[in-house]
Amino acid sequence: MRKERDELGERKLPDEALYGLQSLRAEENFSLGYRKTNLRLIRAMVMIKKAAALAYGKIAESDGQGDSPDCGKNGKAEQSRAIVEACDRVLAGEAEGEFIVDALQGGAGTSTNMNVNEVIANLALKILGKTPGAYDIVHPLDDVNRGQSTNDVYPTALRIAAIELLRDLSDGCAKLQEALQKRENEFADIKKLGRTELQDAVPITLGAEFGAYAQAIGRDRWRLYKVEERLRQVNLGGAAVGLSDKLTRRYRFEVIEKLRELSGMGLAAAEYPMDLTQNNDVFVEVSGLLKSLGVNLTKIANDLRLLSSGPYGGLGEIHLAPLQKGSTVMPGKVNPVIPEMVIQVGIKVAANDYAVTAAAARGELELNAFSPIIADALLESLSLLRRAVFLFRTRCVESLSPNRERCAELLAASYAFAASYGDKLGYDRVSAIIAENRGDPEKIQKALDAAIRTG
Amino acid sequence: MRKERDELGERKLPDEALYGLQSLRAEENFSLGYRKTNLRLIRAMVMIKKAAALAYGKIAESDGQGDSPDCGKNGKAEQSRAIVEACDRVLAGEAEGEFIVDALQGGAGTSTNMNVNEVIANLALKILGKTPGAYDIVHPLDDVNRGQSTNDVYPTALRIAAIELLRDLSDGCAKLQEALQKRENEFADIKKLGRTELQDAVPITLGAEFGAYAQAIGRDRWRLYKVEERLRQVNLGGAAVGLSDKLTRRYRFEVIEKLRELSGMGLAAAEYPMDLTQNNDVFVEVSGLLKSLGVNLTKIANDLRLLSSGPYGGLGEIHLAPLQKGSTVMPGKVNPVIPEMVIQVGIKVAANDYAVTAAAARGELELNAFSPIIADALLESLSLLRRAVFLFRTRCVESLSPNRERCAELLAASYAFAASYGDKLGYDRVSAIIAENRGDPEKIQKALDAAIRTG
Amino acid sequence: MRKERDELGERKLPDEALYGLQSLRAEENFSLGYRKTNLRLIRAMVMIKKAAALAYGKIAESDGQGDSPDCGKNGKAEQSRAIVEACDRVLAGEAEGEFIVDALQGGAGTSTNMNVNEVIANLALKILGKTPGAYDIVHPLDDVNRGQSTNDVYPTALRIAAIELLRDLSDGCAKLQEALQKRENEFADIKKLGRTELQDAVPITLGAEFGAYAQAIGRDRWRLYKVEERLRQVNLGGAAVGLSDKLTRRYRFEVIEKLRELSGMGLAAAEYPMDLTQNNDVFVEVSGLLKSLGVNLTKIANDLRLLSSGPYGGLGEIHLAPLQKGSTVMPGKVNPVIPEMVIQVGIKVAANDYAVTAAAARGELELNAFSPIIADALLESLSLLRRAVFLFRTRCVESLSPNRERCAELLAASYAFAASYGDKLGYDRVSAIIAENRGDPEKIQKALDAAIRTG
Amino acid sequence: MRKERDELGERKLPDEALYGLQSLRAEENFSLGYRKTNLRLIRAMVMIKKAAALAYGKIAESDGQGDSPDCGKNGKAEQSRAIVEACDRVLAGEAEGEFIVDALQGGAGTSTNMNVNEVIANLALKILGKTPGAYDIVHPLDDVNRGQSTNDVYPTALRIAAIELLRDLSDGCAKLQEALQKRENEFADIKKLGRTELQDAVPITLGAEFGAYAQAIGRDRWRLYKVEERLRQVNLGGAAVGLSDKLTRRYRFEVIEKLRELSGMGLAAAEYPMDLTQNNDVFVEVSGLLKSLGVNLTKIANDLRLLSSGPYGGLGEIHLAPLQKGSTVMPGKVNPVIPEMVIQVGIKVAANDYAVTAAAARGELELNAFSPIIADALLESLSLLRRAVFLFRTRCVESLSPNRERCAELLAASYAFAASYGDKLGYDRVSAIIAENRGDPEKIQKALDAAIRTG
Repeated sequence: MRKERDELGERKLPDEALYGLQSLRAEENFSLGYRKTNLRLIRAMVMIKKAAALAYGKIAESDGQGDSPDCGKNGKAEQSRAIVEACDRVLAGEAEGEFIVDALQGGAGTSTNMNVNEVIANLALKILGKTPGAYDIVHPLDDVNRGQSTNDVYPTALRIAAIELLRDLSDGCAKLQEALQKRENEFADIKKLGRTELQDAVPITLGAEFGAYAQAIGRDRWRLYKVEERLRQVNLGGAAVGLSDKLTRRYRFEVIEKLRELSGMGLAAAEYPMDLTQNNDVFVEVSGLLKSLGVNLTKIANDLRLLSSGPYGGLGEIHLAPLQKGSTVMPGKVNPVIPEMVIQVGIKVAANDYAVTAAAARGELELNAFSPIIADALLESLSLLRRAVFLFRTRCVESLSPNRERCAELLAASYAFAASYGDKLGYDRVSAIIAENRGDPEKIQKALDAAIRTG
Repeated sequence: MRKERDELGERKLPDEALYGLQSLRAEENFSLGYRKTNLRLIRAMVMIKKAAALAYGKIAESDGQGDSPDCGKNGKAEQSRAIVEACDRVLAGEAEGEFIVDALQGGAGTSTNMNVNEVIANLALKILGKTPGAYDIVHPLDDVNRGQSTNDVYPTALRIAAIELLRDLSDGCAKLQEALQKRENEFADIKKLGRTELQDAVPITLGAEFGAYAQAIGRDRWRLYKVEERLRQVNLGGAAVGLSDKLTRRYRFEVIEKLRELSGMGLAAAEYPMDLTQNNDVFVEVSGLLKSLGVNLTKIANDLRLLSSGPYGGLGEIHLAPLQKGSTVMPGKVNPVIPEMVIQVGIKVAANDYAVTAAAARGELELNAFSPIIADALLESLSLLRRAVFLFRTRCVESLSPNRERCAELLAASYAFAASYGDKLGYDRVSAIIAENRGDPEKIQKALDAAIRTG
Repeated sequence: MRKERDELGERKLPDEALYGLQSLRAEENFSLGYRKTNLRLIRAMVMIKKAAALAYGKIAESDGQGDSPDCGKNGKAEQSRAIVEACDRVLAGEAEGEFIVDALQGGAGTSTNMNVNEVIANLALKILGKTPGAYDIVHPLDDVNRGQSTNDVYPTALRIAAIELLRDLSDGCAKLQEALQKRENEFADIKKLGRTELQDAVPITLGAEFGAYAQAIGRDRWRLYKVEERLRQVNLGGAAVGLSDKLTRRYRFEVIEKLRELSGMGLAAAEYPMDLTQNNDVFVEVSGLLKSLGVNLTKIANDLRLLSSGPYGGLGEIHLAPLQKGSTVMPGKVNPVIPEMVIQVGIKVAANDYAVTAAAARGELELNAFSPIIADALLESLSLLRRAVFLFRTRCVESLSPNRERCAELLAASYAFAASYGDKLGYDRVSAIIAENRGDPEKIQKALDAAIRTG
Repeated sequence: MRKERDELGERKLPDEALYGLQSLRAEENFSLGYRKTNLRLIRAMVMIKKAAALAYGKIAESDGQGDSPDCGKNGKAEQSRAIVEACDRVLAGEAEGEFIVDALQGGAGTSTNMNVNEVIANLALKILGKTPGAYDIVHPLDDVNRGQSTNDVYPTALRIAAIELLRDLSDGCAKLQEALQKRENEFADIKKLGRTELQDAVPITLGAEFGAYAQAIGRDRWRLYKVEERLRQVNLGGAAVGLSDKLTRRYRFEVIEKLRELSGMGLAAAEYPMDLTQNNDVFVEVSGLLKSLGVNLTKIANDLRLLSSGPYGGLGEIHLAPLQKGSTVMPGKVNPVIPEMVIQVGIKVAANDYAVTAAAARGELELNAFSPIIADALLESLSLLRRAVFLFRTRCVESLSPNRERCAELLAASYAFAASYGDKLGYDRVSAIIAENRGDPEKIQKALDAAIRTG
């Protein structure tokens, strides 16, 4: 066991642990048994660490320090290169078990930043052939965190992680939309009963129903695609409260330039970084759009449940492909398990939206102390939707099949045709004819036709 | 126009206005166009004003001041009697238009208390033959508000208003439960298909379904009945922050005694009034129970929508009595309008619970500044549920009728009987037989019976 | 009393009532005592009625029916003109008391549409010199509702009402942004303590804080401005389920053309009206943006509460202008009543977003039966925010004043200066110096300076 | 790899896997990457499996089948004993990695039940010296699931898991209440400023503040203790939809008897199991109470943040013990990390309550398909609160310390004393004196004293 020490005293750590004392304290302080900080967030932070090291290197170089890119207070290129390599290794998947701090931590993300700084520092030390904890050579704060603050790194990392998932999700929506449109075309000729408020209404086609679903998902796709632009503004370089002084302006320019390269995203320096350091309304906006997608998915999934209800005692107009046994006690039962999962994801996304909103509304003065729950909930919603959209498409929408006979049968049994007589006979006369022949669609039709003939 | 003045300057008021300057300022400051403060809350506050006047009267009497009950700094019985009479008049319905402050006010309810104090003072002045505004004779604060603070009056009044509505609601639930049980008995012999996850499951009876509804509502009734005890603890007498000193202990005893008489509720002085002055968890608790009732009502209402869906292209196992035309364009359409209203009430109650919770969680130090939205939302939920439960019972549950033929038909068409063969044949064999004969319940039954015979 | 009759029987109505039998039944069925349907929604529906009458008139004219514009089954121009005049009168404010149906109605808005149709029909009858109820001359459904369905009128009307309020709100945000920027400039030179997690952090200026507020509100303004485009797509002409046949395509074109003129909004026919008839995700999207504004307002309002806390026992860095007495029992107390009201509006808007989301997620097949609560909640949020933004600006932001002495004093008392030493001395050394001199900012500064000198 | 087969075809499984084909299908169908089903829920299900095996054994014995307790269709005691032993092993922690189904599954929990049945069956087979998959010897459904249905096992298991956590949580609240009362006593003599709406109000003591916190937590403790009785009613034995026939009545009695023994909880057979099979309002009730606790914790945690704000530029009336470095860029900063974590737990619990409510409101007919998210969210809230209450007590409440000087200083600087003059001088006169001397507490006091003397 190696030892580390701070103002609060000395503690032992496993010799090979890449995390350090602050990570350990945070792990204990926030030992809720909830779950660890989202790895996508951590990887985005590591990308920022790398961009910062490269930015300082470039600044040193252009300042005429020759081939000796500067990093950290020690001003040595060797450390800088080791930090960059350490970042690359973590980005490649190394050291995932070293990020030990619970997601619902206090401190506005400081502990996750400390954890990342310690892991990168110790990995760099290993790369340099040193032992973990030799912070006089590579320091987690003075070197790895150089020029940064949790308060600019954390929101920037959250934006990068969110954009990454948003792009996937938007693509997934596009594929779902296409799948729905394919069904729209296939089912275009299947006439069936339209229903409003679960009551028989007017004739439609099964294809038209899938067409309406496709439209809704198309709208989600567009919204999610467009909102990325709001996330591209970053407060990186804003330090503790978003006020860059002269010195950091150059760093700010370089680090965002590097980050743009590394991320492949059109990130831009916020005009007023202090705003983005303290305000989280953009995450509320994104979460609200995810909730809209959740609502559309819920609507469609529930419709598929209704349409496939039965098979004998329900609507039964479509069949969902069976995926697993439906019951431990009722052999042969097939349940609409994918739509049911999708609806639960919709609920979860709305619940996460509650958390994002409540936390964002608790911002105070120069910071929001509750950004960890915002990050946790937002990234969870994005991840869940991404998978739900995929599974919904591949395990439900693409494999369901129509029951043409049932569609025809239920349409024929109803008096959905009656509404179209209103134009000629007037609402009251059609009503009266229906009331006189209630319960007998065939008689209703004859009486309506007779009324037309007699005028 | 009469004039009133305070530190902020002079303003004109209509001569006959019973509200005063502070009410006017508050009306303007909070001119959201939302709605006025709930009258049930105001009436409960007026009841407290009366109790306070009577309590000081009794204290004065027992202090040997003979037949001269003391009220206010002037120590005159006449004013005291006028205040009591003014309260009685307002409680009888007079002056409702004088309570002009919007419900979503800042100031933790101070403006509503000011409004009540001014109206009572001016009405007392009128009773004494004086003109409104002669506050040297009856003062809104020194006299009407004597011994009180918004911070003890407001939470106490909210408790009284809530208990009043809770009792009604609990009674309404009892009647709904009875109505459901009546249907349970009437429908006890109607065999029908049971459905889980909207899929055909096993045979049940229509009566059993209504029995399950009755059980759920019975649980709500009990919960709402029991929670009253939590509301009966009041911080009245706790003044600004809930710390009673020696002087007010006697007043505290007397005023709660009087209030108990006036309200007919078993109110009790809180042991630690400071707690109830700042904490609103009890309202969160009550609101949570209302949400539970909303969930049960939603479940039942939605079931009635499903069971009455069709009439031809849905389940159609029950008929809801038609109450109005269902469509402006589809003559003869009957919609499940009462269940749809009930479900919206359920949504509203859950939305209000959000508001109650969010506001309660924003309490700070010795007070919660956001009690007005707590009061507004909680009393709205109680009122809405009270009416919804009544309308649901009288316009839906009591008048719906079963469709026996349809129940029998759908049951016969399904293979709901198959589950009962599992015990003898084993799950896998029943599954296999169903799979072999999929789509033909009759063949399934024959094959299962044959399997039993052959063992 | 006049009599009206439908399939459910005959009822009496006041002779002069413009509403008719269906309105009466709906009023009774939905007698929740909640509140009446939003008048903005009703006015937008009336505008649609007018547009429809004009559209049919134009179609009749161009069909060579000379100067005899057709309206309704009777094909007479006179009725058509009377309907248009009736609409104009209602739009001018007449007959507001005739819209008697509760907002939380079942039936997907049908009852509000019925109410509007009856009022317009009866007002048209009065204009024609006939008595209310003579529906053979002007019929609520065959004439006033001609070519329409609740299911296309209601969502279209909600869009119009929402756009109207959104424009106002966006303008209000622009004014609030300007007011905040004005304070930003005025306070640009007031140095003060920046705080993160309520702990002393680094020096900032009071102006910078207001600048960050202005940025956040500027973002809201932009979002609210942009989202209008999503609301401009309307399903009008889609009838019951959104499927226009050949006949209505021409009407559809004309009615939207007329509506665009009447509303002054760039409304456009939806490409796939069936989608907008059943899907409400656009309202969820708008409501989500309102929630974002609510979050920003809450953050700013709460900051103003913190900054003005005290005056002696809090931060006291700004003064809010007193607007009313703050306490019934603590003379001289000034409360931050406007920020407290604003925060409650933020809570209400989030609660309404819950309702909008929950209702939207309950859409089923060709319609969402719960659109009334969506309309009620969305329009309430828009109205509340519009007023709250106005009152916040005019009664708080514009009139608050800085406490320069206090800002300077608290900054001087802290060691906010210490962070800037980190670059030169390294994090650990600064930490150690602070720890050694904890509680004495002056000694900390001296020690840090000494460390710099000694290197 | 071994092979298993069902109606959907054959699949390979790892030879040593204890889970089977249905678990595998479910893992794939619900591959959201969310998290696995809560192990507490699984353990409770295993306990039920054991109880069922023992119950059937006892029934067989008393039916005169001697020492050959019956289990499953094979009627052999050996299998029964193996199942019981398999359950014991899982309860002891074996096989945790075998429960592979995601928590947000469709199918109302069927997949988790399938997973448990398969693991127990295969473990029993191993105990019997057989290979996994030999289901003709021990069958997951006919034997392990004998007499059960997911629809009675799942809600019963959730109740057991919830009671277990509730007891812990209630105990934790008791300890927190005691810790707060200890501080109440220790701080009883520390006079300080009371604040309402963040404004200086009247003098109180620091002890009184902690006393109010203790009261609130005491109420939570009581509520959580009492609600257990509602959870003790179980629908076990109700099978698919809650209708027990004659045969199962005996089993029902025995299995609940056994389960009572195994769990040490006073479980009781529900009078109307069909109710508890379909209704989830009890979980909404419990979740609502957890939300109330969350509100109280949030209030207290936020107060501690306010009271410890500063140290120089805030209230600074208490010190929180430092637990870790507060900032990566501001050396010496100490943040209120535990209160911040607690507040996030409060937000999460409210978000989970949203999920529980939304899912419970979607129950349909004989079942609620969305019970998996109810279980997941409810158990998460319970677990989080349990830890949060512990960490809050041990790492914050017990170690914080008062700043007596600061308390005295802020009290002295204010005119909190003024309210007490109201009784004698009247509200208006005190107001006027304060207004005349605004900004100078000392002058205010002198003027008030002078006014008393002059009368």
